[in-house]
Amino acid sequence: MTAPIADDHDDNRLSAEDRRGLYRAILSRRDVRGQFVPDPIPDDVLARVLVAAHWAPSVGFMQPWSFIVVRDAAVRGKVKAAFDRANAEAAQMFEGERRDLYRSLKLEGILDAPLNLCIVCDRDRAGPVVLGRTHIPAMDLYSTVCAVENLWLAARAEGLGVGWVSIIDETALKAILGLPERVVPVAYLCLGRVSGFHAKPELESRGWRQRLPIEGLVAFDAWQGAMPAGDALADALRQAQAAAEDGRLGG
Amino acid sequence: MTAPIADDHDDNRLSAEDRRGLYRAILSRRDVRGQFVPDPIPDDVLARVLVAAHWAPSVGFMQPWSFIVVRDAAVRGKVKAAFDRANAEAAQMFEGERRDLYRSLKLEGILDAPLNLCIVCDRDRAGPVVLGRTHIPAMDLYSTVCAVENLWLAARAEGLGVGWVSIIDETALKAILGLPERVVPVAYLCLGRVSGFHAKPELESRGWRQRLPIEGLVAFDAWQGAMPAGDALADALRQAQAAAEDGRLGG
Repeated sequence: MTAPIADDHDDNRLSAEDRRGLYRAILSRRDVRGQFVPDPIPDDVLARVLVAAHWAPSVGFMQPWSFIVVRDAAVRGKVKAAFDRANAEAAQMFEGERRDLYRSLKLEGILDAPLNLCIVCDRDRAGPVVLGRTHIPAMDLYSTVCAVENLWLAARAEGLGVGWVSIIDETALKAILGLPERVVPVAYLCLGRVSGFHAKPELESRGWRQRLPIEGLVAFDAWQGAMPAGDALADALRQAQAAAEDGRLGG
Repeated sequence: MTAPIADDHDDNRLSAEDRRGLYRAILSRRDVRGQFVPDPIPDDVLARVLVAAHWAPSVGFMQPWSFIVVRDAAVRGKVKAAFDRANAEAAQMFEGERRDLYRSLKLEGILDAPLNLCIVCDRDRAGPVVLGRTHIPAMDLYSTVCAVENLWLAARAEGLGVGWVSIIDETALKAILGLPERVVPVAYLCLGRVSGFHAKPELESRGWRQRLPIEGLVAFDAWQGAMPAGDALADALRQAQAAAEDGRLGG
C-alpha cells in the first residue's frame, strides 16, 4: 500500500518542492518549432523521457504505445515533403489576413531538430478484448496521448523542446514509417535542445488566439450548468489562472 | 523570449529539484478506484488542478476542453447505473478465470469520491477550420486528453486520487450530462483525497498484466526498425526503467 516515493504529509501530498517542480514543467512547456539547436540528445536523457512516457496511464494496463526514433535524413525528408503538401492545402482553408498570418507561422522543425519521434498506438497490443476499452474504443488512443504529454513535460524539465507535427496526411505518414493497418501514428514529434523557451505560446503572442478565462470553462452537474450561488470556486479559479500567468502556480 | 520561470542552467533545464518533483508525480500517479475518503476538496486545490489542465497543449491554441464538476447525487447515481450496465456486459466478454478476476476488480469510485469531473471536448470551440486540425480531425480530442493527464499529475502532487471511468456507454453519458452532439465526453473522472496510493498499478499487482520492458517498445526509422549496431540507448533504457521501478527516475 505504501508508495516507494514517500509523501511528506499525512494527506499524501508530494512535498512543496516537488509540487513546484511539476507545476513549473506544466506552465513552461511549449510547442517548439523554431528554436532547435542541432546538438544530439544524450542517451540517458532520451531514455528518461521515454520511460516517463511509458509510465503514463493506460486502459487495462495495455501500454499500447511504441516509440519510433527517426534519425535517418531520407525518412525525415519524406515526412517534411508530406508536411509541405498538407500545409499548402491547409493555407487555402483560411482567408485574407488570416491566411497571410498562417503562412508566416513556422509550424514544424522536422529537419532542424536533431531527432524526430513518432509515438504510435498498437491497437492489438493486448488482444481484441481489453479491460476498460469494451465500450469506448478510442481509450487506447487516449492512453497513448497521455504518454505523449508525460514525455513532453519530462522533455521540458530536461531542457528539450518538443513540437507536435499534426499538419500531415496520416496515410502518407503510415506509408513512410511502414506502419501496419492496426498501428495508429498518434503523434509525430520533433525533439531537441533549444536556444530558449518562449514565455507564452507563439499562437498567443502572434495574435492567432487568446488564452480563455477558466471560469467560463467550468460548469456544474450538466453542460453549461450554473455555479451554485455563493460558491467560492469562481474566485479560486481566477486567482489560480492569474498565478499561472505569472508562472507561480502552487507557490 | 525569456520564460517567466527561470531556468537554473544554460541548457534550459529546470533545476534538479524541479525535475525530481515532476518525475515523482509521473511515477507515483495511480488510477484510483478504492481508496477515496469523503472529505471535500478545498476550492484552491480544485482550482489549481483545473488550471494545470487548462495549461495543456492544444491544437491551434484551441483550448477545446470544458470541465463539468459533478457533485449532485442524482446525477452520479445515473452515471453509476450506466457503469453497472456496461460493466455487466464487459464481464461477459472475458472467459473462465479471467472473467472471475475481472469481476473481483473494483473499477470505479463514482459514489465513493467526493467529486466527479467530466472533461469534455467542444469540437466547435474555434470554428470549423482549426490550425493544425485540418488533416487529423482527432487532434482536438488528443488536446483534451493532454488536459486530462496534466490534471491527473497535478492531482497526484496535491494528494488527490483520480480514477478514469471508461466502462460506460458514451451515448448514455451524453444524455445524463445534457451534452450537445458536438461535445465529446473524453474522460469521466472520480476525484478526491485518498487513504493512500498503491506502490504499483492494481492491474499489475493483481496479475492482470505486467509492465512491458521499454527496450522492446523502441524502434528506429521505421516500424520495428532495429537499433543501429553499438547503440548505447538500449542500456540507457534498461537503466532508466530500473530507476523508475525504484521511484528514483531523474536522481
